[in-house]
Amino acid sequence: MFKSIELGIKVSKEDYNKRLPKLRADLLAAQFALKTSPVPVIVIVSGVEGAGKAAVVNALTEWLDPRGVETNVFWGATDEERARPPYWRYWRTLPGRGKIGIFFGSWYTDPIIKRVTGQSKNSELDRELQRIAAFEKMLVQDNALIVKLWFHISKKEQKKRLKKLEKDPQTRWRVTPMDWKFHKMYDEFAAVCERAIRFTDSGEAPWHLIDCSDSHHRNLEAGRILLEAIQQRLAKLAAAPPRQRVVPQVPKTLEGPSVLDKVDVTKKLSDKEYKERLDKFQARLSQLTWEAHNKKISTVLVFEGWDAAGKGGAIRRVTSAIDAKLCRVVPIAAPTDEERAHHYLWRFWRHIPMAGRVTIFDRSWYGRLLVERVEGFATPEEWMRSYLEINDFESQLAESGIVLLKFWVHISPDEQLRRFKDRAQVDYKKHKITDEDWRNREKWNAYVLAINDMVARTSTEYAPWVIIPGNDKKLARVEIVKTICKRLEAAL
Amino acid sequence: MFKSIELGIKVSKEDYNKRLPKLRADLLAAQFALKTSPVPVIVIVSGVEGAGKAAVVNALTEWLDPRGVETNVFWGATDEERARPPYWRYWRTLPGRGKIGIFFGSWYTDPIIKRVTGQSKNSELDRELQRIAAFEKMLVQDNALIVKLWFHISKKEQKKRLKKLEKDPQTRWRVTPMDWKFHKMYDEFAAVCERAIRFTDSGEAPWHLIDCSDSHHRNLEAGRILLEAIQQRLAKLAAAPPRQRVVPQVPKTLEGPSVLDKVDVTKKLSDKEYKERLDKFQARLSQLTWEAHNKKISTVLVFEGWDAAGKGGAIRRVTSAIDAKLCRVVPIAAPTDEERAHHYLWRFWRHIPMAGRVTIFDRSWYGRLLVERVEGFATPEEWMRSYLEINDFESQLAESGIVLLKFWVHISPDEQLRRFKDRAQVDYKKHKITDEDWRNREKWNAYVLAINDMVARTSTEYAPWVIIPGNDKKLARVEIVKTICKRLEAAL
Repeated sequence: MFKSIELGIKVSKEDYNKRLPKLRADLLAAQFALKTSPVPVIVIVSGVEGAGKAAVVNALTEWLDPRGVETNVFWGATDEERARPPYWRYWRTLPGRGKIGIFFGSWYTDPIIKRVTGQSKNSELDRELQRIAAFEKMLVQDNALIVKLWFHISKKEQKKRLKKLEKDPQTRWRVTPMDWKFHKMYDEFAAVCERAIRFTDSGEAPWHLIDCSDSHHRNLEAGRILLEAIQQRLAKLAAAPPRQRVVPQVPKTLEGPSVLDKVDVTKKLSDKEYKERLDKFQARLSQLTWEAHNKKISTVLVFEGWDAAGKGGAIRRVTSAIDAKLCRVVPIAAPTDEERAHHYLWRFWRHIPMAGRVTIFDRSWYGRLLVERVEGFATPEEWMRSYLEINDFESQLAESGIVLLKFWVHISPDEQLRRFKDRAQVDYKKHKITDEDWRNREKWNAYVLAINDMVARTSTEYAPWVIIPGNDKKLARVEIVKTICKRLEAAL
Repeated sequence: MFKSIELGIKVSKEDYNKRLPKLRADLLAAQFALKTSPVPVIVIVSGVEGAGKAAVVNALTEWLDPRGVETNVFWGATDEERARPPYWRYWRTLPGRGKIGIFFGSWYTDPIIKRVTGQSKNSELDRELQRIAAFEKMLVQDNALIVKLWFHISKKEQKKRLKKLEKDPQTRWRVTPMDWKFHKMYDEFAAVCERAIRFTDSGEAPWHLIDCSDSHHRNLEAGRILLEAIQQRLAKLAAAPPRQRVVPQVPKTLEGPSVLDKVDVTKKLSDKEYKERLDKFQARLSQLTWEAHNKKISTVLVFEGWDAAGKGGAIRRVTSAIDAKLCRVVPIAAPTDEERAHHYLWRFWRHIPMAGRVTIFDRSWYGRLLVERVEGFATPEEWMRSYLEINDFESQLAESGIVLLKFWVHISPDEQLRRFKDRAQVDYKKHKITDEDWRNREKWNAYVLAINDMVARTSTEYAPWVIIPGNDKKLARVEIVKTICKRLEAAL
């Protein structure tokens, strides 16, 4: 693969200077058009040590308007990063729509180095590459343009460059023993990188291999590839029909019983049982969350449920049992513009806790499969592919040792009506009941369908849905605290 | 001070339940009105161990609409936090306008504990308290409402509560040896806290002391104080005249010479001198930034200058000398809505580098003293107080060991005109010249006045302004790289 691009193309300085002005003007024009588009551009700068990647990054940032370009260099993770799933550090640096993020080092670096240094096997490498492919596909489906550049020089050329650096007293210090060590492993690197490139050279995010034996050629190639990629994407967008709010084409009512029909909402707890059990499980939860903290195990709790199902009250019974130092509630309301400028999962990644903490999401990423689906805010393609996206997201949390639990608090339509009417009567509850709640109620059946699909498709061993009968608030609260305790006990 | 509030006021459960509905309804109404206001609310929850602060936090979050409240618990700083000035962790959690941030632990915690445990002297404590007072004043001037709650119980009551917790097998584990140790130091804590409260009990952000011998009284008091504070602030805002863009009432032209008149813009470098010197200083800078990294010393470089002065080209000569792993350029453009929802310094605090890195601001917080002043985007009160705010900000950076340098790249009006015309001719430079640039040029004299004030008032030993003659780009670039080297050499 690499041999075939070692063509030794040379561009003279004169020719370079002649071609550069047009390339720069075109790049700026493309960037200008990009700014108002929904496309974030991710430029991955990878390749062989000594090929001149830093020089290319400098050239690109010189040619582009710096207001709209961010360069991210991945290097030694911080403890805030290490205490979270590995992809957290990439999520936090993804560019927003209309912006360009240059990734110097990326999600490819660790898997490749681990394989070359023998810390992983081919099967593990392949699994990582699969994750990368899924990640990139997900971003591309959300309009991202991923431009993957591989900068190549031969082993001979690498040796020549290292020697040249060593010869000059002003640059000698740049050559480290590590550089020579990696040079000796050139062929091993080449083999692993070739595997990585082949595996991830997808139609959505293809690799571009650039021969770097000549620096003028290298720079022009990098600029040209980026330019054409942006131009093509914008042209494709312009040709696409405008995005519209879609009324879902799925049947509005479920045929046959739903997961919710099995829930017995008639069960009740007496005041005495409630107090005893709640006290007992809260005390237990208190201890368990400290134990989890000491073992650096995080917990993520998701609360979803019908309007007026009692999520808020249940969440407070959980938080009042956990030391405030360990616990954070994240209520999900309308996204900010920074959040809207990213993939919909970005705003949830933002809140993933450090090891040993508890994070409670009051509503969550499941909004996409509930309100966004039912109201048509997301297209069927969007919410359908989010099953996969969400399962992958949650599996990453689980793999990094996070205990994940998802509650659906269920009440019957009659009980909801009773609570709506009750809320309208009490001054400090009035704000909780809006016209929207009444409108949602009319879509009860569409929601049942959505909930049924959601529970069926996203209940996994590592992130199960627990449906809580909510007609009796006391019972619901005890069930929730108890369930969290059981799951923590199993995990500790 | 504390004795005087130990009044032992009791509220019966019946009375509590009777008064609560109105308090909750009023709090929600106040929060609702707050949401569209420019006021961020900071609730500081401090006080004696065992007074029930966590219970108050739980009550407040129950009473308020959770979408708009964030609870921040300060506890064990992460390495990303430790590698930056101490206030960075508070800045990153400040609530936006219309939101409420509950601070459980705050900027008061560390100075108090340090003093009680003998790690600092009274003079050092006072200095920290002064910083706190200035910080709070700055936030309040930017419309923040700071509600500082001190929860008090007597030493006797504290002992009683610890004993009670110890007696119950379900709560025994909550009492740690540290609790008893701190209990023994109750009087020392009381003395230091009293000093802290007196020192920071300002008209802008007064303290409220709450007797916590009765939990109903405690909760009602906390709710009432927060409610009244929000109501008063909103009433005051409503009574104030609407904020308008102000045409500054200062003389538009400087009497006498400005700092810029002293700059000799006629000096030049030959191509040969340029290449030699730039190579030399770039190589030196390369080494110095690695040395600084190894010593965990960060560098912050600020670039300001006339339109077309050549900031971008100069910055690239700096970045191309520094390993991309160590360096980040932050171009300052229009703020995002999350940024606009905070104090204007918030967006710069966001980008303060971790120890050992270099951050380059392409335009900066000095926008407030330049374009915002000249164009009237900031009122005279706002930009005038920003001298103090900026000096304090920069002194915090310097104290944490950051090397700070500020460049003003100066060109003559004639040279600017020449470059504007030149830019209009070259395709890939056209985007750099806008109508705004021509309008700014007409305000040259107003800018000279603003620059002169800025340089005079914000040139400090720890953060000097360096005025770079920019008519000859080659000279300017060499001067800048050289100046950074000299300063790093002095710091290492």
